Amino acid sequence: MKNKRIVSGMRPTGKLHLGHFHGVLSNWLELQEEFECFFFAADWHSLTTEYADTSGIRESTREMLLDWLAFGIDPEKSTIFCQSLVPQHAELNLILSMITPVSWLERNPTYKEMQENLQTKDLSTFGFLGYPVLMASDIIVYKAGRVPVGHDQLPHLEITREIARRFNHLYGEVFPEPEALLTETPKVLGLDGRKMSKSYGNAIFLSETADETRKKVMSMVTDVKRPRRTDPGEPDRCVAYSLNSIYLSEEKRTEIVAACRTAQIGCVECKRAQAEALVEFLAPFRAKREELAAHPDRVEAIMDVGSRKAQEEAGKTMREVREAIRF
Amino acid sequence: MKNKRIVSGMRPTGKLHLGHFHGVLSNWLELQEEFECFFFAADWHSLTTEYADTSGIRESTREMLLDWLAFGIDPEKSTIFCQSLVPQHAELNLILSMITPVSWLERNPTYKEMQENLQTKDLSTFGFLGYPVLMASDIIVYKAGRVPVGHDQLPHLEITREIARRFNHLYGEVFPEPEALLTETPKVLGLDGRKMSKSYGNAIFLSETADETRKKVMSMVTDVKRPRRTDPGEPDRCVAYSLNSIYLSEEKRTEIVAACRTAQIGCVECKRAQAEALVEFLAPFRAKREELAAHPDRVEAIMDVGSRKAQEEAGKTMREVREAIRF
Repeated sequence: MKNKRIVSGMRPTGKLHLGHFHGVLSNWLELQEEFECFFFAADWHSLTTEYADTSGIRESTREMLLDWLAFGIDPEKSTIFCQSLVPQHAELNLILSMITPVSWLERNPTYKEMQENLQTKDLSTFGFLGYPVLMASDIIVYKAGRVPVGHDQLPHLEITREIARRFNHLYGEVFPEPEALLTETPKVLGLDGRKMSKSYGNAIFLSETADETRKKVMSMVTDVKRPRRTDPGEPDRCVAYSLNSIYLSEEKRTEIVAACRTAQIGCVECKRAQAEALVEFLAPFRAKREELAAHPDRVEAIMDVGSRKAQEEAGKTMREVREAIRF
Repeated sequence: MKNKRIVSGMRPTGKLHLGHFHGVLSNWLELQEEFECFFFAADWHSLTTEYADTSGIRESTREMLLDWLAFGIDPEKSTIFCQSLVPQHAELNLILSMITPVSWLERNPTYKEMQENLQTKDLSTFGFLGYPVLMASDIIVYKAGRVPVGHDQLPHLEITREIARRFNHLYGEVFPEPEALLTETPKVLGLDGRKMSKSYGNAIFLSETADETRKKVMSMVTDVKRPRRTDPGEPDRCVAYSLNSIYLSEEKRTEIVAACRTAQIGCVECKRAQAEALVEFLAPFRAKREELAAHPDRVEAIMDVGSRKAQEEAGKTMREVREAIRF
């Protein structure tokens, strides 16, 4: 029998945007139909970079969870939980730290890279160095068979596999080596044409109002080589079109492309149509999100139930771990 | 009100010997009369150096606990528990790792030293590097006010204090900075005149039989400058006397010293008297130990009750920690 269990986590960075939706959530939605999924808010991971100001983590977790639930991550199908509510992650992290060579962590390509990229933060902490050990614990404490990852995360997963292998070698077979479920993450462009990112201030958030979305779409850059309304345009050069075309119907898309290339439609009018398509696409999710947000107790209950189930599963593994290391 | 809580742990290395008794246990016996003591078997710490072969840790913990109890560590007065039964240590360890600079750990004087001394073991692991963070967690998770340490452990305690200070600075006052309760550890000599140590094979174990102890004392080196029975001896040069004199009565001690210096007593006869004094001193403890060993359920119950109490106390602190970091 194939191991059909999947673990995937997301750091609580606040309200999610379209980049998260197309990059992660839509993938999770498919996975939960086929696999037994454990989806978690990685709040302990947030501490690796946010330890100096933790004030936003709790609220970010709540907002992120609302987005997950509104967009169809289903507590009936998947186990949805918060990492810090499952102490077994910390316990396994401690045990795995004992068998993980420091050199494996130092050679982790994202280690130096992130330290260089986030120079405003002091990331020379022991916990930041040990990030891959915690990630390994998160995954193998559920004996996950697969982990959805992008290409850039493959080195991390390789450390997870090495740690699992080392544990099995030292103490006997307990953990499967989780395999990568390679995920194509489409590059979602933001308002300014760069990758959509909260920190660039170019994001359309899943939870904003229809009017906010409209305003943002209208502000988007179009084809810079079409300075005048009467010039013919090229949708392939249009940032707005690149973001919004997927929300248009096939028919509407064909119509717009033709009209742009022959200058029959202006950018303002065109973006108005795009904005409506996007707003329409998001409307049902936003309605569901508002409803959920009005019932925080329900959301909390989902998190509690999920975290209890996660504790139970992780607890089973930890009993095996204790047995294996003969504690 | 003074903080009267003390935390102290011992790695389970197996049966304890006279060195442990005079170095640690006798000190604990005094402490438990004056303070609220938490004494724990540091089995997770054993993993820092013993991860490659964990087969002996469980049995060592049991043996060590028997020694503690037999020699008067009293579950009515102190909380006696096993570190790995209190997951809060691991949870706090994870959180503290996020705020501890790697440089604090690398500059820890025992880090390089132990790596050099234990060259047969590969100690380049993340867990070994993080030893002082786990130690800090062990101590401050109980908000201990004082920690009994020898001079050589002061640098470790200093890291604990620094970590507590950093936590308080970042998240608000939660932890007292534990103070050192400096302990004079007498250097107990082993059979060959070197420091008593299990690894030197020169130890007298608390749990061995009276006959084993007698045989060991009889094998001890005496005054090497007294080759003949008829030569006058000097107790100050006698390894046997240096170990055993404390078990002799004042009167007997005076008598032996005089008889040795005037060659009125031979070394064999003298050591026989010393051995009897030691055996007599150990007899009540050994009887109690045997009785306890015959009732493993009682010992297990003591550990369970103690670990539950420890969990409760550590749990209180962890609720404050979660509140402080706003999780």
